[in-house]
Amino acid sequence: MKHVVIVGGGFAGLNAAKKLGGLRDVRVTLVDRQNYHLFQPLLYQVAMAGLSPADIATPIRSVLARCHNISVLQGSVEGVDLQAQAVSADFGRLEFDYLLLCCGSMPSYFGHGDWEEHAPSLKTIPQATEIRRRLLSAFEAAERTDDPETRRKLLTFVVIGGGPTGVELAGAIGEMSRFTLARDFRNIDTRLTRVILIESGPRILSMFSEQQAARAARDLEKLGVQVWPNTLATDIDEHGVQAGPERIASSTVLWAAGVRGVEVAGLIGRPGQQPERAQTDRGSGVETDRSESVKLDRGGRVVVDEDLSIPGHPNVFVAGDQACFTHQTGAPLPGTAPVAIQQGRFVARTICRDLAGKPREAFRFVDRGQMATIGRSRAVAEIGRLRFSGWFAWITWLVVHVYFLVGFKNRLLVVLHWAWSYVTFRRGARLIVEREWRFGGCAGQDGRDGRKDKTVPARDETRTDGEE
Amino acid sequence: MKHVVIVGGGFAGLNAAKKLGGLRDVRVTLVDRQNYHLFQPLLYQVAMAGLSPADIATPIRSVLARCHNISVLQGSVEGVDLQAQAVSADFGRLEFDYLLLCCGSMPSYFGHGDWEEHAPSLKTIPQATEIRRRLLSAFEAAERTDDPETRRKLLTFVVIGGGPTGVELAGAIGEMSRFTLARDFRNIDTRLTRVILIESGPRILSMFSEQQAARAARDLEKLGVQVWPNTLATDIDEHGVQAGPERIASSTVLWAAGVRGVEVAGLIGRPGQQPERAQTDRGSGVETDRSESVKLDRGGRVVVDEDLSIPGHPNVFVAGDQACFTHQTGAPLPGTAPVAIQQGRFVARTICRDLAGKPREAFRFVDRGQMATIGRSRAVAEIGRLRFSGWFAWITWLVVHVYFLVGFKNRLLVVLHWAWSYVTFRRGARLIVEREWRFGGCAGQDGRDGRKDKTVPARDETRTDGEE
Repeated sequence: MKHVVIVGGGFAGLNAAKKLGGLRDVRVTLVDRQNYHLFQPLLYQVAMAGLSPADIATPIRSVLARCHNISVLQGSVEGVDLQAQAVSADFGRLEFDYLLLCCGSMPSYFGHGDWEEHAPSLKTIPQATEIRRRLLSAFEAAERTDDPETRRKLLTFVVIGGGPTGVELAGAIGEMSRFTLARDFRNIDTRLTRVILIESGPRILSMFSEQQAARAARDLEKLGVQVWPNTLATDIDEHGVQAGPERIASSTVLWAAGVRGVEVAGLIGRPGQQPERAQTDRGSGVETDRSESVKLDRGGRVVVDEDLSIPGHPNVFVAGDQACFTHQTGAPLPGTAPVAIQQGRFVARTICRDLAGKPREAFRFVDRGQMATIGRSRAVAEIGRLRFSGWFAWITWLVVHVYFLVGFKNRLLVVLHWAWSYVTFRRGARLIVEREWRFGGCAGQDGRDGRKDKTVPARDETRTDGEE
Repeated sequence: MKHVVIVGGGFAGLNAAKKLGGLRDVRVTLVDRQNYHLFQPLLYQVAMAGLSPADIATPIRSVLARCHNISVLQGSVEGVDLQAQAVSADFGRLEFDYLLLCCGSMPSYFGHGDWEEHAPSLKTIPQATEIRRRLLSAFEAAERTDDPETRRKLLTFVVIGGGPTGVELAGAIGEMSRFTLARDFRNIDTRLTRVILIESGPRILSMFSEQQAARAARDLEKLGVQVWPNTLATDIDEHGVQAGPERIASSTVLWAAGVRGVEVAGLIGRPGQQPERAQTDRGSGVETDRSESVKLDRGGRVVVDEDLSIPGHPNVFVAGDQACFTHQTGAPLPGTAPVAIQQGRFVARTICRDLAGKPREAFRFVDRGQMATIGRSRAVAEIGRLRFSGWFAWITWLVVHVYFLVGFKNRLLVVLHWAWSYVTFRRGARLIVEREWRFGGCAGQDGRDGRKDKTVPARDETRTDGEE
């Protein structure tokens, strides 16, 4: 019986596992750092207080419960030994016959790692709830303050990056401030909120047609979002953003400008040790990891063969955001859910073909189009030659996203949340949840960090012993 | 126009505010550390992965949005100056004509503050998600380990305190391990999970009749919960609990044994300074806070007059869990939602009577009965002379809790979650969410604390700069 190890329970890993589930001659171990599969395309709605984390996340082991040949382990993979055909995780060692790496991507700040603190990205649930906390806290702080300059800074939101995520975030902030929050505050007029979407390229949604991108920009502007194309963020700190020559005072900056493949360099090769690589983020070519013959593209993704395997290692596959697949179009496939889903399934099929003694095929991505939503009744879509926008595109977006969401209940809940928000203009998850779980007491300030611009002390420092 | 300041947006504060909303001669400011009102009675379901935090929490300002004479401020009250008739908060100072303090209660570890780390309580959303994280992580860790002793420790859950919360928690863990998780694991049989409910008194649910308490204990035992009455927890650490002479090796201990009123001593009097009080938690009498003439009972609650005002200060009221009201029965009223709701409304009525020049009345609590749920189709209820249990009590419990939940959508969602869980035996929110929001990377371990028994480093230490 062959042992397949899958690292990562995202779109690629989960779909590969599902396809391998129930087979007789394969035993599968899926390892993920989280116990849940996250439906990334709707994560921005968690950040924007529209959905709860549990609405878009499903426990991986309950999705795969019926596949008795699959065991799911929550854990961190620390290294891959290609010679010994084994994976080392924090809970032990797993030998494999086949390996599928699909650890996804992580935010890239183009060498400015210190920006993350002031401009969180949106890849994980904790990041989404952190963004939600910052966003809602800014309005609360603006309501409390009497200083007009502070208030203006608090009511200025900057989103960096004009891709689909940036557009969704900026649109949602605009919509929230104009509709959801408008009646709830006494001292501030939330409709005066400034939302600025900064894009370094000449236009937002560069993967869409110019016409569609222009439509999206107009829709954003109707929601009060200022779109600044051809603008590079050159500095971000706690007070705001330096955007080209202009300084924007803002207390809430969000980063949607770049991602790169999760580090595989330290993974394949000597565990824990980072090979010395040149900083080639803005460079041009493909570089070779010295410790092993794994090629990475400039986005940190693993360059894979036509069958998604690593050159020279036909039983080791990389899929999803972590893979750089260029054989079909010359340019790498984008890091989207459809690519990951199809690649995950393809790898499972390839393993089955191997076991059946059939020859391998080359992966081909079937592009079913792309969509981006701007807000209520506003979206752009391109499906094949079809290009459409507005209400119909928005409904299409809704249907497609609900269709792909894992789990019947999650689908039902998300539809309900959306229907309720559509009718009432409200948002279902407007909670500012503190990070510290210990009880801080009412009189004391400790343990409470519902405010921005406050450093979170270490766990032991916030110890209050407030109970006696 | 009179200014009423309400500190705390729980059941008492929110109900007082609602009653005062829309009045012409009153201006109200409600201050709360959170931006949401939490429906405490269902918080255990968030901890037990059945509901999401947003399902039982509503933004206070959206509940009160239509009351234009009420402004809501998120902030921490640091002191009350009774002479100057002002409240000092972290955002500034508020002068009041009337003050209502209703900051609720906090866990009490009877002088063993160090136990909190190993045995979290259930009062806030972060605590609930922390308990959820520990509970689910224990099963994940048990699935990973090969050592039978470690596995046994991981699959032993101890709940300390046999009141309604302890019974609900223990019952839910028993149910979850027997039904929800049973099919999802490969290496462990979750049905062998040990759940131990420790109660220091002679029986659980001491406020119920003996017959009902015995029924609840039988129901718990059917779910695999061992009930240990007459047992005192004398020590709790990371390895387990010393329960009387017996040592229980357990990696997940929950505390539901005691609460006390949120410190008002530091609040009224010199801000930030704690008057030196003797440790009278297990003592007998009422003590006097030396800094002001505010009497606290041994549970840290403020002893109030018949009209819920502080003796000598007729315009300062205390209500809910923070108040000790003994005029009706001799014994203090319990810290339950019905008491808080009725007291909040009473204070609002009293202020209205004052303004209308009418004499004050004494507060009288109308007891409509009590209920506790043990699990699926299992509950006990006492309404007036009526005592019932089983399925009918459980349905009554459901209906009453949904009825009192704030907000139509939350009601609908909770009903849906419950219906779905009832039919499928599943739980809707089985997420283990890390506390750290920064991106840790796949290869690195940093920023990840999905595991138990791991200290959470300070924010800056987990800085990984993983993006390049």
